[in-house]
Amino acid sequence: MSIELGQCRLVYRQYFPFWEKLTDEQRELLCANTGEFSYKKGTNIHGTSGNCTGAIMVISGTLRAYLLSENGKEITLYRYRPGEVCMLSASCVLRSITFDVIIDAEEDSSVYIVRGDVMAKVAEDNLFVANYALDNAVARFSDVVWVMQQIMFFSLDKRIAVFLWDEFSRTGSDTLSLTHEQIARYISSAREAVTRMLKYFAAEGIVELSRKGIKISDREKLRELATGE
Amino acid sequence: MSIELGQCRLVYRQYFPFWEKLTDEQRELLCANTGEFSYKKGTNIHGTSGNCTGAIMVISGTLRAYLLSENGKEITLYRYRPGEVCMLSASCVLRSITFDVIIDAEEDSSVYIVRGDVMAKVAEDNLFVANYALDNAVARFSDVVWVMQQIMFFSLDKRIAVFLWDEFSRTGSDTLSLTHEQIARYISSAREAVTRMLKYFAAEGIVELSRKGIKISDREKLRELATGE
Repeated sequence: MSIELGQCRLVYRQYFPFWEKLTDEQRELLCANTGEFSYKKGTNIHGTSGNCTGAIMVISGTLRAYLLSENGKEITLYRYRPGEVCMLSASCVLRSITFDVIIDAEEDSSVYIVRGDVMAKVAEDNLFVANYALDNAVARFSDVVWVMQQIMFFSLDKRIAVFLWDEFSRTGSDTLSLTHEQIARYISSAREAVTRMLKYFAAEGIVELSRKGIKISDREKLRELATGE
Repeated sequence: MSIELGQCRLVYRQYFPFWEKLTDEQRELLCANTGEFSYKKGTNIHGTSGNCTGAIMVISGTLRAYLLSENGKEITLYRYRPGEVCMLSASCVLRSITFDVIIDAEEDSSVYIVRGDVMAKVAEDNLFVANYALDNAVARFSDVVWVMQQIMFFSLDKRIAVFLWDEFSRTGSDTLSLTHEQIARYISSAREAVTRMLKYFAAEGIVELSRKGIKISDREKLRELATGE
């Protein structure tokens, strides 16, 4: 697996801030171990086996990163979209990351992957690369804490789901002409928090958001979330 | 607030890996803005006001880092003990950390604190310092995900509490002569997970662990956790 050096330069400059800080040897090593891959919707890209798959650069499609419990329960942590880089699939680069994130292609996706062990070697010799990897991980730390706070403290996911489900049952319409501000007032929360959670719902395929309001696109999922059944 | 340069060198060499990589100017700047502080048990050191308190080096005592909800619910994320450095109290150094952690002195504690804005300036100019700060944060990322998994997936905290409470009610003794292995079998979990959660309980003051077994030191807290009341 490798891409040609000229293309590789373009790719690395697009995704990473450190190309100019690499030695020629490091550039060749990275490029010789970077490949292009395509995944069909639903394919698992990085699993729980403790493998160090590598850094994944998203060209097209969407990747979903989630935690999975033994009994099959999932928590979506975040999504990677075109132009973004997933480093948590390269645990050998980030040795202090001890948890396993699973990464699936949520849509048909194409990506570049640079091998984890190779990236780890370069990061060991080059502080700019190490710095990039750590910074990428820390940015996700904040996302994860937000998910945790919403679910554990506020049950905001459930509160919004209950509200939407009640509105849907009451009006019989699956399009609710409500602003996020109105919903926030009804459930005594902050508008920003409601907006963020609705975007989360949208990404999960539960609702669609538009100027007209909120359209329920997956009634069954919404009902489950609202009633816990 | 400042400590004398000779003492400062000793302190920085003890707590940070980057002293040798600093310029003389950076050393003077950091030392001129590093002070020694003492906090009584229960004192708040770093709050939710979005302040950039700084990097906290623990000399003695224990600091507790936790999340706090609007209605007063807490989640303990981790503790800092002598020899450890807390960077999450320096959000201006770690710009991608967008959540607020609260830090209290859990026991009478003494610490050195280097001002956040000063540390941020040095980290901007010196990649070793930036790297250290990020690495310190990433190490806590794994701790937080572990707490989240245990509580959200397995309710392991509750399952162990229910088991201990039942045993206590059944035997009438507040010392349970059980191995972690036995508890793990009873509640269908892994020994390692039980050990880690019991240590978490011990740190919370709910139990004391010894060779003889598990002593319940705070019945009320255990009952609350077990019954949810």
